[in-house]
Amino acid sequence: MDHSRADGHATDSMSRGGSAGVPADQATVRRSNLALVLRHVSACGPCTRSAVAAATGLNKATVTSLVSELQARGLVKEMGPQHAGSVGRPGVALALDGSRVGALGMEVNVDYIAAIATDLAGRVIIDRRIGFDAMGSGPERSLDELARMAERIVADLDRLGITPAGITVAVPGLIDATTGTVVVAPNLGWRGVAVTERLSHANIAADIPVAVDNDANLAALAEYTSGVAAGTSDLVYLTGEVGIGGGVIAGGRLLGGADGFAGEVGHVVIDPSGESCRCGRVGCWETKVGLAALVRMATPDRAYGTGPQLVRDPEERLAEIEHRRAEGDPRVDAAAAEVGRWLGIGAAMLVNLFNPRVIVLGGYFARLADLIIPAAQQTLARLGMSDAVERCRFAASDLGFGAASRGAAGVVVERALSDPTSISIRTPPTILPSA
Amino acid sequence: MDHSRADGHATDSMSRGGSAGVPADQATVRRSNLALVLRHVSACGPCTRSAVAAATGLNKATVTSLVSELQARGLVKEMGPQHAGSVGRPGVALALDGSRVGALGMEVNVDYIAAIATDLAGRVIIDRRIGFDAMGSGPERSLDELARMAERIVADLDRLGITPAGITVAVPGLIDATTGTVVVAPNLGWRGVAVTERLSHANIAADIPVAVDNDANLAALAEYTSGVAAGTSDLVYLTGEVGIGGGVIAGGRLLGGADGFAGEVGHVVIDPSGESCRCGRVGCWETKVGLAALVRMATPDRAYGTGPQLVRDPEERLAEIEHRRAEGDPRVDAAAAEVGRWLGIGAAMLVNLFNPRVIVLGGYFARLADLIIPAAQQTLARLGMSDAVERCRFAASDLGFGAASRGAAGVVVERALSDPTSISIRTPPTILPSA
Repeated sequence: MDHSRADGHATDSMSRGGSAGVPADQATVRRSNLALVLRHVSACGPCTRSAVAAATGLNKATVTSLVSELQARGLVKEMGPQHAGSVGRPGVALALDGSRVGALGMEVNVDYIAAIATDLAGRVIIDRRIGFDAMGSGPERSLDELARMAERIVADLDRLGITPAGITVAVPGLIDATTGTVVVAPNLGWRGVAVTERLSHANIAADIPVAVDNDANLAALAEYTSGVAAGTSDLVYLTGEVGIGGGVIAGGRLLGGADGFAGEVGHVVIDPSGESCRCGRVGCWETKVGLAALVRMATPDRAYGTGPQLVRDPEERLAEIEHRRAEGDPRVDAAAAEVGRWLGIGAAMLVNLFNPRVIVLGGYFARLADLIIPAAQQTLARLGMSDAVERCRFAASDLGFGAASRGAAGVVVERALSDPTSISIRTPPTILPSA
Repeated sequence: MDHSRADGHATDSMSRGGSAGVPADQATVRRSNLALVLRHVSACGPCTRSAVAAATGLNKATVTSLVSELQARGLVKEMGPQHAGSVGRPGVALALDGSRVGALGMEVNVDYIAAIATDLAGRVIIDRRIGFDAMGSGPERSLDELARMAERIVADLDRLGITPAGITVAVPGLIDATTGTVVVAPNLGWRGVAVTERLSHANIAADIPVAVDNDANLAALAEYTSGVAAGTSDLVYLTGEVGIGGGVIAGGRLLGGADGFAGEVGHVVIDPSGESCRCGRVGCWETKVGLAALVRMATPDRAYGTGPQLVRDPEERLAEIEHRRAEGDPRVDAAAAEVGRWLGIGAAMLVNLFNPRVIVLGGYFARLADLIIPAAQQTLARLGMSDAVERCRFAASDLGFGAASRGAAGVVVERALSDPTSISIRTPPTILPSA
């Protein structure tokens, strides 16, 4: 997924003169120009065809033809009253069409399944979340539940006249994106789970493509496109849940690594003389700042011992901690400050390695941000390279539990904007004659 | 610096028809097409004009005109005998011209100054290195020495008829590339040193641009373009010297971070209960795998105590360690294995965060690679995320002390290839008529 703006374009006159024009090239050029026009309308709309022509360098007749096709694919619409009969309709503004094509992002996490459907402008149409014990239920029943939710939402969208351009599912684990398989998701207890394959058997139109990606990577994209640090081209996203997820935006692009496994912060060893982690290592960052660590410190009377157990009912435990905090229990403040301190220790490593401008905190970190961030910032200032640290701040995410689903929907939108021909034509386009 | 191949291009007919063509656009299009042709010749040459036209989609008359200009700028030459009089010279192969335009990369490090001059194909023309106590001499005298070396090499190149397209200087520290200033270089004891400004007063042609960049980042680029892991689009480069430098190639691009400070691995805290570092923190990676740690363990009778002192005469100390190893001193093997173990501990963190395919070891790590790598690989396998670790290997750099200078020269070449108009015309181009 490349968010950089197109800085060049192919014209429809590429194959004139002496070069060997072939049909395949013309299709490529057309697709590239459709994307160019669609991105311009998406970023700068509402705007007229003339403005699109001026900004893209395409001639107006070409723009008119491209816009017709984008209209036919349900991607662009005209705003306001049409001036019937005027060729090229110079005064009519174009905008993204939100009425027919949407995007569906979903997330399976330890104790819930969530979904967000948006239009092409990222406006939320449906936002759902159900409590679900994905860990206890196992992959098969979890995927059944996911499929049922997807079917219901696609049906609901259909009643609104909207077809999703695709479905992307966020999972907290290592993903093989090419096969749509979860390689391993420790906190779900999954290994080798073919998510895309299962959803292909759901009662959903077969031409809606399904993809799978890492939850924190998708949440990082959501923060980059629409969160508190939107537009910050170097940011790190950290989410505090039962596990600790991380996603890195570097130079405006998601850092994937060779296999899409980059940003796996949870099991970085941060205290070689610390506690055992349930992964078998000692002193993983997760043992210091995961929800289990907070629960253990904030509610020692209710903790599941000191062993490497999972936190059952995370949302319930967090609610209890917030309740005790409201009642003035000093152990909550102390626990959050200790989490903040270890968060700062790990953040110093991240700042030295990634030199981000912002570290966005999601999950439970965001819920207790006012307690966690001061301690984290103080520790970071002490341990990080000062020149990089001075220019980096923590920020609490305001996307809540929807961050990963929103990022997943964003990936679908991005794909549609990059290749408008992936959206099928419902009505034949009206190709206007050249001006 | 973007190594990705251009996947589109602007044609010379962009402004025909109804769009508002302006001269600035035509210049941009011309520049973009010059770069397109030059990159193709660079990557695929020797090749004919017809082959360039077919591969780029430009028409042959345009290619002929562009090639004429590239010849006039000394960037492209014809190979073999010319078929006099034949328009378009279909059978004549084109190649990068190595005779007139070169690139100069330099490096200031703790105990040496190095320089490598290459032609546009990256072939080394001059390779020099002098022992120099940059730390003891202070920035002013060091830059004087650097300027003298630059003057001598530019003069030597001039005698060969070659002008460098630019000079890039590698420095082990945080660099503000926009002002050409070293923000801080702990191992040199520099802070706020204006390298570009100083070289602008050297006796070098004023139109040769000078830039400064981080040594490990430049070395990582050299590994990516011409080292043991050439072409590996996700790699981490680590160099063991007095300090520990790191550079990261992610998705085929150098990871810079918000301020170009990314990849600063040396002062990541890796053992909170470890030794004090001379930076004031405790347990930095450098205290475990820097040259001082090796010297302390391998030659305890000769170490400078256990304090946070610098290693004087690093090359001499390393030679002594290699000598003792040859004599069978078991302490050398044990010390290298211990360095390898801590290298593996830090590498596990890097693999979880960057998911690289290869970790290239430079500096003294490469000199003792056969001792260090087995211990490092074993520790990495134990501590890293298994799915990422299984696909990652260590490799010893074969670029030696020249890695950073070579990467610096590579940056100059890259800039010339991206904008051929930055190279001045020596003879007026012969613009041939369109075919």
